[in-house]
Amino acid sequence: MNVTIWNENRHEKKNPKVEEIYPTGIHGAIADFLQEEGFNTQTATLDEAEHGLTEEVLDNTDVLVWWGHLAHEEVTEDVAEKVKQRVLDGMGLVVLHSAHFSKVFKKLMGTGCDLKWREADEKERLWVVDPSHPITEGLGQYIELEKEEMYGEHFDIPAPDQLVFVSWFEGGEVFRSGATFTRGRGKIFYFRPGHETYPTYHNKEIQQVIKNGVKWAKNTNTSKHKYGNAKPLEEIKNK
Amino acid sequence: MNVTIWNENRHEKKNPKVEEIYPTGIHGAIADFLQEEGFNTQTATLDEAEHGLTEEVLDNTDVLVWWGHLAHEEVTEDVAEKVKQRVLDGMGLVVLHSAHFSKVFKKLMGTGCDLKWREADEKERLWVVDPSHPITEGLGQYIELEKEEMYGEHFDIPAPDQLVFVSWFEGGEVFRSGATFTRGRGKIFYFRPGHETYPTYHNKEIQQVIKNGVKWAKNTNTSKHKYGNAKPLEEIKNK
Amino acid sequence: MNVTIWNENRHEKKNPKVEEIYPTGIHGAIADFLQEEGFNTQTATLDEAEHGLTEEVLDNTDVLVWWGHLAHEEVTEDVAEKVKQRVLDGMGLVVLHSAHFSKVFKKLMGTGCDLKWREADEKERLWVVDPSHPITEGLGQYIELEKEEMYGEHFDIPAPDQLVFVSWFEGGEVFRSGATFTRGRGKIFYFRPGHETYPTYHNKEIQQVIKNGVKWAKNTNTSKHKYGNAKPLEEIKNK
Amino acid sequence: MNVTIWNENRHEKKNPKVEEIYPTGIHGAIADFLQEEGFNTQTATLDEAEHGLTEEVLDNTDVLVWWGHLAHEEVTEDVAEKVKQRVLDGMGLVVLHSAHFSKVFKKLMGTGCDLKWREADEKERLWVVDPSHPITEGLGQYIELEKEEMYGEHFDIPAPDQLVFVSWFEGGEVFRSGATFTRGRGKIFYFRPGHETYPTYHNKEIQQVIKNGVKWAKNTNTSKHKYGNAKPLEEIKNK
Repeated sequence: MNVTIWNENRHEKKNPKVEEIYPTGIHGAIADFLQEEGFNTQTATLDEAEHGLTEEVLDNTDVLVWWGHLAHEEVTEDVAEKVKQRVLDGMGLVVLHSAHFSKVFKKLMGTGCDLKWREADEKERLWVVDPSHPITEGLGQYIELEKEEMYGEHFDIPAPDQLVFVSWFEGGEVFRSGATFTRGRGKIFYFRPGHETYPTYHNKEIQQVIKNGVKWAKNTNTSKHKYGNAKPLEEIKNK
Repeated sequence: MNVTIWNENRHEKKNPKVEEIYPTGIHGAIADFLQEEGFNTQTATLDEAEHGLTEEVLDNTDVLVWWGHLAHEEVTEDVAEKVKQRVLDGMGLVVLHSAHFSKVFKKLMGTGCDLKWREADEKERLWVVDPSHPITEGLGQYIELEKEEMYGEHFDIPAPDQLVFVSWFEGGEVFRSGATFTRGRGKIFYFRPGHETYPTYHNKEIQQVIKNGVKWAKNTNTSKHKYGNAKPLEEIKNK
Repeated sequence: MNVTIWNENRHEKKNPKVEEIYPTGIHGAIADFLQEEGFNTQTATLDEAEHGLTEEVLDNTDVLVWWGHLAHEEVTEDVAEKVKQRVLDGMGLVVLHSAHFSKVFKKLMGTGCDLKWREADEKERLWVVDPSHPITEGLGQYIELEKEEMYGEHFDIPAPDQLVFVSWFEGGEVFRSGATFTRGRGKIFYFRPGHETYPTYHNKEIQQVIKNGVKWAKNTNTSKHKYGNAKPLEEIKNK
Repeated sequence: MNVTIWNENRHEKKNPKVEEIYPTGIHGAIADFLQEEGFNTQTATLDEAEHGLTEEVLDNTDVLVWWGHLAHEEVTEDVAEKVKQRVLDGMGLVVLHSAHFSKVFKKLMGTGCDLKWREADEKERLWVVDPSHPITEGLGQYIELEKEEMYGEHFDIPAPDQLVFVSWFEGGEVFRSGATFTRGRGKIFYFRPGHETYPTYHNKEIQQVIKNGVKWAKNTNTSKHKYGNAKPLEEIKNK
């Protein structure tokens, strides 16, 4: 399993609080716990050439994890289109938190992907609503986070193929915080938590969900299709 | 009910056979039978200013019907984005046949929307697979078309919210030929038949499906949402 | 539109508080506001012969609304099976609150339909999560109920065809409180609120949702199918 | 991975043609190729005590494969209910061919599960319609079977959670021949082919699908839920 963790890596450079929580960057923290699971990991960030997502890197990526917030617009159209196409071709994609507004996710969803938000140090409780789903492996009934940013409905996404988590927020909102989609040969998992000023990615249960999401998103040599003009497989009488 | 029928209207000008079948254009034929249903109709075509889709026209459109084939690339990004946004805001959209490759549909789906195809004068039989769906009002178990273009799987769309028709083709393929999607406040119905060289839109059952699809796609003053920063609705203790 | 409102009508006889809120029974209250919408209504209750659901009554029912709680087990297998079959044949079904545990709903779902619950006079806020859905006609972003019984996840139902509402509860839970399903030719809407000791069915927004649900659930003369042995529609060469 | 293959094992005893194709029974043939995959297998048949499905056997079953046809009614209510409950509790279920009419499948679906059928030695071609799905691992675009029984739409099941295969039949029908469902903690895969008088379960591609289906259906220690009365997790002000 080859996992590439992409991060815009800007908050880490600008905000000492973020740097303190994630001294090797959000991408570094995620890579660390994915390695513990035995996955091969590499990281890529916005300020590298091609944002670190060269053909070679993508050729060695089974699943791509994406975190972005401040600089969605700095991701070039070329790279966003290339990554989208890779997903359609079978690369798994795990979209975290504020990456709901990333170019790649928006292109794949076809909707505005907007939502309500609030930074108020409030409690979030993520309830499992699909206890058959492998993304819930090893979890209890819910995950509780003492302080997180709020994301509230309506979340402007297509109806998910599978809804796995729904969040309760102290301030009165709910959110579909774990949702899966398929596009072409690709599997996509959106997972809400992970505001940069909280140590969310150090939480063991959150780590478990991301590990599960990566496993789930990996394509397992599924069917490939041809498109375009096709000769008949059976005789056509009218001809 | 205000319905706008958009057509690129190019085959009609280039191919005498198409002109013979649809002397007032494919848009004219569709407008005719939708008027019979009591809908207010207007048409718009590619070569008009803004492709006929001005703000005023769109303001008076509950449901937009779209047919295109030769000239998808001539539809400007501006108009394609504007129409997409209208759908997210609640305008219904009925996408016909080769419009699977239209900019608007591809943007809303997020996938390649590709498929297999063949022009071989072959038989198509569209089976109803969801007999609870209002789009099947007045229909029998299937619709038979003596000669149509073949479209075959894999059809590269997201899993539909509702699958209404599956086609059997004489040459050995199947196709998900009637499928619904929601995006934002908008409802979208894709319906496969309607190759320009066959009189498919004169078929009463096909007309019935398109009428049903238009009725289904109309937004009925549903809930509108606010996005962005939101004040708490309940007291937050941690603050 | 012919709507039959079924109620076990037991709390009303036993509990003066319920009788005070609903002097003509929960069924009476629901019938009243559905009549305002121009629907023809009739009511049926547990203690009538055949629980009031004779062939004649069902023949004159486009949509059946169901409320039950104390006495699910007193509904005979015969009536439960008959009602289930009517739904498969195209009768709409609106299942309210504690009817999640009714025989009819459990038979149609195939699951345990269990949930968490608590009576604690707490606040419920039902968020619209599908703003394209006709069941949200005329609504804002959410409905707030000052005091209701809590129902919490996991709600043991199949993944809904469409998820329309998600509830937030003051005590920390969430719930998929508005969900649609199709079974055969029938359309089913489950709607959570309506504990007998609160005046929930006098709330105008709740009434609006139930009216919308009844409209949505009505079958519109959709496709009917034949089952069993079938002659080929095309020549089979191997024979 | 512990797999139990259940078969009513009646055709094998009555029809020499079936016995010739499957000398160790359909269950024996399926067990053989699942063992090759490294799964632990055991078989169970109708005429054993408790139909071979004792508590001990079920305790050692991750995934149950089910084949039945002639004798669905001979399966006792007790066993059918017990197996249904096990699925809700997390046991995987692979339902083959004529088991669409088995008590267990019908109870889990909530619908009639009826369909069209014909025995006419006709060609079936199963097209992959979801190339992201792990059940298509190792497959091409379609599977072709020279001679099979026909099953035709409408197939009276709930809308599947995921539609994986759609069949084309020589005689003019289509069928949703590979479909997944979740119920409680359980995952269910229905797969159409396998009429007793054809050597379908000796086909390598069909074997591949069943292996994939078994892998997919296995529960991976997912979230478990408590139901019933629940204390609040947050303070309720109204109390």
